[in-house]
Amino acid sequence: MASDRVQRLLEGDRRSLTRVLTWVENGSAEGRESLRELFPKSGRAHVIGVTGPTGSGKSTLVGALTRELRQRGKTVGIVAVDPTSPFSHGAILGDRIRMQDLTSDPGVFIRSMATRGALGGLSAATSDVVTVLDAAGNDVVIVETVGAGQDEVEIADTAHTTVVVNIPGAGDDMQALKAGILEIADVLVVNKADLPQAEGVFKQLHIYTDLQRQAGWDVPIIKTIAHKDEGAAELADVIEKHREYLTESGRLEEMRRQRAHRQLLTVTQAMLLEGALAEAGDFVDELVEQIARREIDPRTAADRLIAAAKS
Amino acid sequence: MASDRVQRLLEGDRRSLTRVLTWVENGSAEGRESLRELFPKSGRAHVIGVTGPTGSGKSTLVGALTRELRQRGKTVGIVAVDPTSPFSHGAILGDRIRMQDLTSDPGVFIRSMATRGALGGLSAATSDVVTVLDAAGNDVVIVETVGAGQDEVEIADTAHTTVVVNIPGAGDDMQALKAGILEIADVLVVNKADLPQAEGVFKQLHIYTDLQRQAGWDVPIIKTIAHKDEGAAELADVIEKHREYLTESGRLEEMRRQRAHRQLLTVTQAMLLEGALAEAGDFVDELVEQIARREIDPRTAADRLIAAAKS
Repeated sequence: MASDRVQRLLEGDRRSLTRVLTWVENGSAEGRESLRELFPKSGRAHVIGVTGPTGSGKSTLVGALTRELRQRGKTVGIVAVDPTSPFSHGAILGDRIRMQDLTSDPGVFIRSMATRGALGGLSAATSDVVTVLDAAGNDVVIVETVGAGQDEVEIADTAHTTVVVNIPGAGDDMQALKAGILEIADVLVVNKADLPQAEGVFKQLHIYTDLQRQAGWDVPIIKTIAHKDEGAAELADVIEKHREYLTESGRLEEMRRQRAHRQLLTVTQAMLLEGALAEAGDFVDELVEQIARREIDPRTAADRLIAAAKS
Repeated sequence: MASDRVQRLLEGDRRSLTRVLTWVENGSAEGRESLRELFPKSGRAHVIGVTGPTGSGKSTLVGALTRELRQRGKTVGIVAVDPTSPFSHGAILGDRIRMQDLTSDPGVFIRSMATRGALGGLSAATSDVVTVLDAAGNDVVIVETVGAGQDEVEIADTAHTTVVVNIPGAGDDMQALKAGILEIADVLVVNKADLPQAEGVFKQLHIYTDLQRQAGWDVPIIKTIAHKDEGAAELADVIEKHREYLTESGRLEEMRRQRAHRQLLTVTQAMLLEGALAEAGDFVDELVEQIARREIDPRTAADRLIAAAKS
């Protein structure tokens, strides 16, 4: 029963949390029922998106930030959407030792997302997983993504505070600038700040933020050396400050509304399509054939599909 | 009248082609009518996707390839989805001189896409633009994208042959490997092959393709120096070979069907949502408020939206 599981999840049972997350990710009936029950309990967690190119040390930074938040008495849920994240592999390989204190901490829950191609896309699935971890009582939920595509930008939309991690390295800074992920940053981090090129990246980011200055919030640029936990406290402070800014400025309320709107459209769209395809049955294949043979264009075919589904 | 424009477009009038493309990109009624008329005339062009990171010299390579194809008597349409492409700016700046022979050639038509956020997404809009350039009689349509996100992978899905361009540079090869854009490659190019690190990238790509070997088609790795037009003939040969493989193996037919299926679903989904939102009217705002206040979950709200739209 989904309800029993949800109840135990809310009482803090980790196995029930794992089970419910699997249901939710699979989009099963139990998953939908659980989400319906859990959604009203969510909305309290601060959701932090951490994104940046592969090799920027995002995962290590997430680890350092989590340790800092734990010392401040916060419980933390981590969602690893980045397939190269050590969190996606139960913290294996070189990161094993550094991640072990996290994986054995009852105040930390780690979940990796593997479901590209989920109904409504990866961002919808991620958003559901965040809702569950939020409802489960985590004070903070951290979503780690590779900063690259549209999917990742949408996932960043799930976050209240988006941290973009940059690496000091030949050309990589410019790469990030061009890819447009700086635009979504509320906080910029120069990780591996002990590398010789770090100062150059730091200066470039300063020029960038000076140009992009937005009303109410000056994007801070933090230097970190994540594998030594250096800069994690400052990062946690700045994130806390951003949270306060969002609350006081009314931005948090606005974000909630925008997010609600987007969620409604995404789910409605997926459900409508599902329904129409079920109604239209084999006629869909016929239409696909007609398009493939260039007899009718996709829009005319869609008109006919919708008409058939309605009748 | 859309019909008149379409007629003139089919007779080779470039101004009509430009006009129809604008209609199509804007998703206007004229655009839809034009697409309906043009779709049955499309399906003859070979569509080549060229993707790779910023700075890999993709645009220069597209230029060199286009020159080669022109020498072989083919007409070429170019769609620049990459916002940093010189083709997106009417070939300005440093590329001006090298691009000028293309922009003044009546056998070449260049269009840049600027419409992120189009109905059904950028990939749907790109696919429509390709349909128009195809119906307009171009033998080859080249789609240039930045190889990064989901959007780009979907756009690559529009192509029959996907060329992934790599740059010799510290770490960049690995970056591409991890980003997963190699997976979509039918042809790999090491551009700037005169740079000292080129041989290393070339070898790494060989190891990669040996591991990823697929039935029927061995992904060739071509060295080019695009700004000297070197390697363009070999690239054109290999693309031609891939076209033959697709035709003979039945893959081309299969791709047509898959694409038709995807197009049908994308358009149906967008139309259904549009219709439901129009029917539901102000009730949508009410539902958004209820989700934002966490009174109901998005799925329950979507159920109610759909029920309201139907009644």
